[in-house]
Amino acid sequence: MSIDSDIENNDIFYMRQALQEAKAAYDEGEIPIGAVIVCKDHIVARAHNNTEQLHDVTAHAEMVAFTAASNTLGSKYLTECTLYVTVEPCAMCAGAAGWEQIGRIVYGAPDAKRGFELLGHQMLHPKTEVVGGVLEEECAALMKEFFKKRRG
Amino acid sequence: MSIDSDIENNDIFYMRQALQEAKAAYDEGEIPIGAVIVCKDHIVARAHNNTEQLHDVTAHAEMVAFTAASNTLGSKYLTECTLYVTVEPCAMCAGAAGWEQIGRIVYGAPDAKRGFELLGHQMLHPKTEVVGGVLEEECAALMKEFFKKRRG
Repeated sequence: MSIDSDIENNDIFYMRQALQEAKAAYDEGEIPIGAVIVCKDHIVARAHNNTEQLHDVTAHAEMVAFTAASNTLGSKYLTECTLYVTVEPCAMCAGAAGWEQIGRIVYGAPDAKRGFELLGHQMLHPKTEVVGGVLEEECAALMKEFFKKRRG
Repeated sequence: MSIDSDIENNDIFYMRQALQEAKAAYDEGEIPIGAVIVCKDHIVARAHNNTEQLHDVTAHAEMVAFTAASNTLGSKYLTECTLYVTVEPCAMCAGAAGWEQIGRIVYGAPDAKRGFELLGHQMLHPKTEVVGGVLEEECAALMKEFFKKRRG
């Protein structure tokens, strides 16, 4: 196995964990987006979108996960961490990732309307690597199902 | 007095309140940025940058104030509110303001490096009005003094 395919397998493994979080959000009536943060092959935070329960439109999966990861690691920055998130982060979450100096961002489905990539990578730390499209179809399908059901 | 100068006087009054918060941050060794959120002529939240005390690089004055204002008002959106903040919001905070659908943003000093205006207004709600430069010199002077002292 090459190093590249090892990384790819890891990414799929952790994205499945993020998808589990997204499914938990779905079951709670939250927009189904999930995230995990991984540091040296350990999950240091897992979270899902929690805007309804917390009555807080900023309680995105990524924001909750960043704060949890910093608490777990007792560290100000997340330079050695990877954020796995089922949907492309918005500008707020990408801006937060910039302050956290996160090492990598791996996302599932793109978000054509609110995704940060529309605005470029300027709000991220220059060293942050970004990979999109991991388990894209599964991540997108959960979102489609949720909004279809909500429209009734 | 014209309506315009009433608005201007109001903006100066509330920016002074935000400056009080910034000074409190300064006294606590935090980067001196303060914010208040005003709804129908009442302050519904006041906060300052709290990244050191909370060990959380996302605990910017605006983020703390948004969550507090939503709690106070029991409201998901802040469409009838104005955010007063002593320094131009970053992309994270402007993205959050977008989700909050805040009515107005009034800031003091521009932030040439991390200010959201570098990236345009796309991350804000289309109806959000933005005013910069209110008490700009006082807001900027506090930041300069802080960083000068820190470099020691």
